Amino acid sequence: MKKGPLIEKDSFNLIGKEMKKDFDSFHLPIVKRIIHATGDFQFEDTIRFHPDAVKCGVEAIRRGLDIVVDVKMVAAGVNKKALAKFGCNVVCRISDEDVEQTALRFSLTRAEAAFQMILSEGTASNIGIIAIGNAPTALIKTMEIIDAGGFSPALVIGVPVGFVKAEESKDMLSQKNYPFITCLGKKGGSPVAAAIINALVIIAGENK
Amino acid sequence: MKKGPLIEKDSFNLIGKEMKKDFDSFHLPIVKRIIHATGDFQFEDTIRFHPDAVKCGVEAIRRGLDIVVDVKMVAAGVNKKALAKFGCNVVCRISDEDVEQTALRFSLTRAEAAFQMILSEGTASNIGIIAIGNAPTALIKTMEIIDAGGFSPALVIGVPVGFVKAEESKDMLSQKNYPFITCLGKKGGSPVAAAIINALVIIAGENK
Repeated sequence: MKKGPLIEKDSFNLIGKEMKKDFDSFHLPIVKRIIHATGDFQFEDTIRFHPDAVKCGVEAIRRGLDIVVDVKMVAAGVNKKALAKFGCNVVCRISDEDVEQTALRFSLTRAEAAFQMILSEGTASNIGIIAIGNAPTALIKTMEIIDAGGFSPALVIGVPVGFVKAEESKDMLSQKNYPFITCLGKKGGSPVAAAIINALVIIAGENK
Repeated sequence: MKKGPLIEKDSFNLIGKEMKKDFDSFHLPIVKRIIHATGDFQFEDTIRFHPDAVKCGVEAIRRGLDIVVDVKMVAAGVNKKALAKFGCNVVCRISDEDVEQTALRFSLTRAEAAFQMILSEGTASNIGIIAIGNAPTALIKTMEIIDAGGFSPALVIGVPVGFVKAEESKDMLSQKNYPFITCLGKKGGSPVAAAIINALVIIAGENK
């Protein structure tokens, strides 16, 4: 076994021993991978899954649907080789020039403008998973568009970190009746979003 | 003011109010930015600075020296526009094919192999800052090369997250007599490494 994967295996064993809560075999690998990415066992308490979240996320990956992320750190953190095997593209438009212009024009954050533009385009039909690690504004915009019936993704991963609207946006997401994965409180971030996607890709590759 | 920077300003005000410890004006913006990136006030307690760390890191940026990072998430998280104004390049070789081959051949992790190759090349003289957010193996390799007299960077930012050697490697770094920034315990990660670099770049642009 290569050294990197060997260290990862040891890490997961250590995490399993230190965990306090029970998760079923569908949710456990996701929670473990979040703790692996953050070193923080508090996510055991704060994680929230819609009952269909894992099933719908895995199906979206197996169907090769796009994954839209808010920031480049999430895109950098996902296993793009593994996703490419399923034909999934990772879409991140925060640095596009037209996004910057729209943000300025309508007083939006860049992530918010990017999500508004992506989700209102014809290409939205090819989107499977929305994953937000940083921008509560992008998560709130996503929920608004879904609630208005404009768009219906397979899964919303909403785990923005922060002090302004992060907690509120995640509280809102945790009460939705469509598939979501979120974590309550201020903590979250790109490593959490990427860890969830990477765990889903591994599950997608198993027991097909 | 743009919406994104406005939210950031509000966040920093909220963080300042919730902080429990006093930091001087040289260290405070770095600690605040770490808490901003993680939503986690525990870093107030775990952060460790060598007395010359900020000064040396800021000087390295002002001189336009390279910043070597272990993983792509750190590279994705740093403000490359701001760094480019100083002429600083961000170097990340973890996905290079020759790095992968060296890792396999010598049973190293890819990050470890990348650092061994980068730091033993002639180009090492242009390196100012080493920043490690994920791979304790890369941090240990860096400390070995520095201790052997092979290389002397301006600053080592060593904040790997994790369960295998992360704590030990950061304990070791916190006792070094060359400039370092680290955080004790399991927590850390790419957002912490990127936050430290981004705080240093802002300081580098002030009071020149």
